[in-house]
Amino acid sequence: MTRPTSAYVDYRVSVAYIGSVLKYLAAAPLFPLLLAVFYGEDPLPFVAGSAVMLAVGVLFERAHDTNDEDALGNREAFLVVSLAWLVVPLAGTVPYLVAGTGTVAGPVNALFESMSGFTTTGATVLGEISVARHGHAMLMWRQLTQWLGGMGILVLMVAILPELSVGGAQVMDQESPGLSLNKLTPRIQKTARVLWAIYVGFTLLAAVVYYSLHLLDVAPNMDLYNAVAHALTTMPTGGFSPKARSVEAFAPAVQWAVMPFMLVAGTNFALFWYVLRGEPRRLVENAEFRSYLLAVVAFGALVSALLFVGVGLDATPANVDVIPGNAENSLRQGLFQVIGVVTTTGYASMDFNTWDASTQTIILFAYFLGGSAGSAAGSIKIVRWVLVEKAVVRSLFTSVHPDAVRPVRLGDEPVDEDTILSVFTFVVLFLALFAASTVLLYLDTLRTPELSLTGLEAMSAAIATLGNVGPGFGPIGPMNSFEPFSNAGKLYMVFLMWIGRLEVVSVLVILTPSFWRS
Amino acid sequence: MTRPTSAYVDYRVSVAYIGSVLKYLAAAPLFPLLLAVFYGEDPLPFVAGSAVMLAVGVLFERAHDTNDEDALGNREAFLVVSLAWLVVPLAGTVPYLVAGTGTVAGPVNALFESMSGFTTTGATVLGEISVARHGHAMLMWRQLTQWLGGMGILVLMVAILPELSVGGAQVMDQESPGLSLNKLTPRIQKTARVLWAIYVGFTLLAAVVYYSLHLLDVAPNMDLYNAVAHALTTMPTGGFSPKARSVEAFAPAVQWAVMPFMLVAGTNFALFWYVLRGEPRRLVENAEFRSYLLAVVAFGALVSALLFVGVGLDATPANVDVIPGNAENSLRQGLFQVIGVVTTTGYASMDFNTWDASTQTIILFAYFLGGSAGSAAGSIKIVRWVLVEKAVVRSLFTSVHPDAVRPVRLGDEPVDEDTILSVFTFVVLFLALFAASTVLLYLDTLRTPELSLTGLEAMSAAIATLGNVGPGFGPIGPMNSFEPFSNAGKLYMVFLMWIGRLEVVSVLVILTPSFWRS
Ligand SMILES: [K+]
Ligand SMILES: [K+]
Repeated sequence: MTRPTSAYVDYRVSVAYIGSVLKYLAAAPLFPLLLAVFYGEDPLPFVAGSAVMLAVGVLFERAHDTNDEDALGNREAFLVVSLAWLVVPLAGTVPYLVAGTGTVAGPVNALFESMSGFTTTGATVLGEISVARHGHAMLMWRQLTQWLGGMGILVLMVAILPELSVGGAQVMDQESPGLSLNKLTPRIQKTARVLWAIYVGFTLLAAVVYYSLHLLDVAPNMDLYNAVAHALTTMPTGGFSPKARSVEAFAPAVQWAVMPFMLVAGTNFALFWYVLRGEPRRLVENAEFRSYLLAVVAFGALVSALLFVGVGLDATPANVDVIPGNAENSLRQGLFQVIGVVTTTGYASMDFNTWDASTQTIILFAYFLGGSAGSAAGSIKIVRWVLVEKAVVRSLFTSVHPDAVRPVRLGDEPVDEDTILSVFTFVVLFLALFAASTVLLYLDTLRTPELSLTGLEAMSAAIATLGNVGPGFGPIGPMNSFEPFSNAGKLYMVFLMWIGRLEVVSVLVILTPSFWRS
Repeated sequence: MTRPTSAYVDYRVSVAYIGSVLKYLAAAPLFPLLLAVFYGEDPLPFVAGSAVMLAVGVLFERAHDTNDEDALGNREAFLVVSLAWLVVPLAGTVPYLVAGTGTVAGPVNALFESMSGFTTTGATVLGEISVARHGHAMLMWRQLTQWLGGMGILVLMVAILPELSVGGAQVMDQESPGLSLNKLTPRIQKTARVLWAIYVGFTLLAAVVYYSLHLLDVAPNMDLYNAVAHALTTMPTGGFSPKARSVEAFAPAVQWAVMPFMLVAGTNFALFWYVLRGEPRRLVENAEFRSYLLAVVAFGALVSALLFVGVGLDATPANVDVIPGNAENSLRQGLFQVIGVVTTTGYASMDFNTWDASTQTIILFAYFLGGSAGSAAGSIKIVRWVLVEKAVVRSLFTSVHPDAVRPVRLGDEPVDEDTILSVFTFVVLFLALFAASTVLLYLDTLRTPELSLTGLEAMSAAIATLGNVGPGFGPIGPMNSFEPFSNAGKLYMVFLMWIGRLEVVSVLVILTPSFWRS
């Protein structure tokens, strides 16, 4: 996408591309529609959702000829990416609004839930999460939004953002399939097909594994519905669950089974392509993959050890009787929560609000890691931290040896200096946005009598949404809801989920005046 | 200092240089010694202090011939800088330990107070700050440590760190006098003489202005002793005061008079050199100076407005009756606290612990600004934020226009790409150290029953010491003390004051194994 920038931003091209996306998306509500028919629930929300997507999609597509590939310049591509993640979540609110059940009958709540779904965040404003209240079909729609969002993000991360050089996304290029193709569209098509095949494959495998635990009588409540529902939100690192208590609702065996699938979901999908091609060394020798596993093991071991000796838990909850001194339980709870947060999935096997300040602060740091590039994970991502660490070490070295020339290397490849600067720019922007958002959300809750947050909890609200992780601490923990926030606070977090999902820079670019100047 | 790196680190050269510093420093305790004689207080602490400095200084100097300039390579210079700010504060504990009065009779407290002095931080562990308890001479020694520390830092910032290319300190080079000199020693000597003349001149002027308010009967308690004591801690952005209630103890006229001197103390001193040479435009056209004033005006106006309308204050304290609706009082309190924090002086004209969450969080952000490069101010410093902002804007621009080549400019000068990367490295390191320190200090206070900190207060402890600002929030506020921290916590903050004062990188460099390898 290094074609010359056109004289003006041709937003009609961007609108047309978004129209195509919507048109295909109109098929998605058919799955919950089938469930509605099967369970004898109201089919109207999904008929209406599909109809709106199709109608708007066809209308938008008429704005321009999408076969005219040359019309899609650098700036039009930025516009497609940023607007697609606004328009699709807006269209996704239709089923919630038409059903009119519970908190998501309100437009702000519906938008929050839909944006949280399509950005694979997993923060929720559903008051009562139960099939009895919302029906099988509607809760499956909620799960499905995350799975669809994950598909979009994979293509965004591995095929589009690297071409737009966003936030150092170029480094992912090294591992992407289809490097030799120059045209954007064929490249995206080929990459997308490979990644989606891997994504669908792992989703099916997760559903089979989860359901087999039911068939083996190990997890009576992991029926086919729940197996599919959780498989749909594991692979996109989404974290929505039809159970109010998340994965805590299931047997320990289910919790152990979910962990490897979360780890897979936080891995660069391009690496699995090499495994399929018979080059598994490309996976195990990958610099980011090694750091990712190291981070999970280190954080997981630390938290598990603190739980095992009983330091990491509040003195009050019932869990204190069953976790300290119990190796399996400590390891499972420590690892599960760490993997849930590092991969930005946001599933929980226990409420870490019953943990003490030491384990909670470790988890807070884990929020900033963010899985691997080239996956649907959010937040800063391990590869950026690896590059920051290497650049800092290089900087210390050259302070002492000013004449030394040492490129920063990732694996064996030297990394471009422009990429390093992009990575630093991203990290500083992300942290500045986190800091400012913490303050804004904290000040907002001061004016919301129902919701009193500590400083740590306000931080968790900011990073849970900006980093697309999902749950926070305290009143917005994994077994709770973001519903008590004011409408202003919720809309601000809708903005955070959106800008975080698009790697900050893609959105900021279209907000700068120079973007629109010719 | 681009001479070739020697085969091994000749630490003897560094020790000898530190010996010279200590030898000259032995003259410093003579000033409180004279006061002790004048006020009829115990002279022994200062005799002992001077004797120890002289003895250790002469001993250290014998380690190597300091006239052999070629022996001082890049690495030896890093060692001088880092160790000088350890050895001098250690020597500075002697008067406290010999006097044996109050909390600073303990070695950890003495080191904390001395490090806080020589790094111009201003955080204190003195329990009862009063002349009655500690004597005129001892409190003046405490003030003097900051003034001496300020002299050292000016030379460090403007003459040494730019040559060592620490954290983007090169940008200060552009405004430094004596650019044409290449040899380190003559350059430092010339620069030091100019800067110190300006520093001494402003210190005298501050003392005269403060004392004249006493002579005019505007401030009865600003006697000659207090005028000198406060002049000595204004110019180095120190913030120690012989009054337990800091500048709140004095009349509003004194508070107004202190503000411009704090502003001067936070300005790049090299710019005053141009003013003296008849080029005042160099000051008013300086990019950092403009951003610095803009930050003070913007933060000050916002805080003052919040105080004026009564939102920015806790509902409880007595101050609520006198500040809201009172323009002079609101403006004075808002501006004073903002200037005190932005310049990292840490003086306070009221306890901002009586402020509400909105004004406190604004102040917390101000902690990270940190005055101008080329002054004795600490923290991140405005010029780095200016460069970060410009680099981010440039990055957004080049995302859209990939073929555009736009150097980042500061004023009219293009800034080297290496410098920009150094600045980002510094900012990320500083923020990472801040985040980790917040957690460590918070966890430490959990094991200290006398000291219970909120998350915000733990953050303030980390940035107040790492940024060399001084007071924090809550139990460690401007009218309180860091004494309740555990010894481990205090020693960790001694480390933070030290590494923060040396711009982080100078210390990290000597802690890397490759520094010591040949
Ligand atoms: K998530
Ligand atoms: K200070």
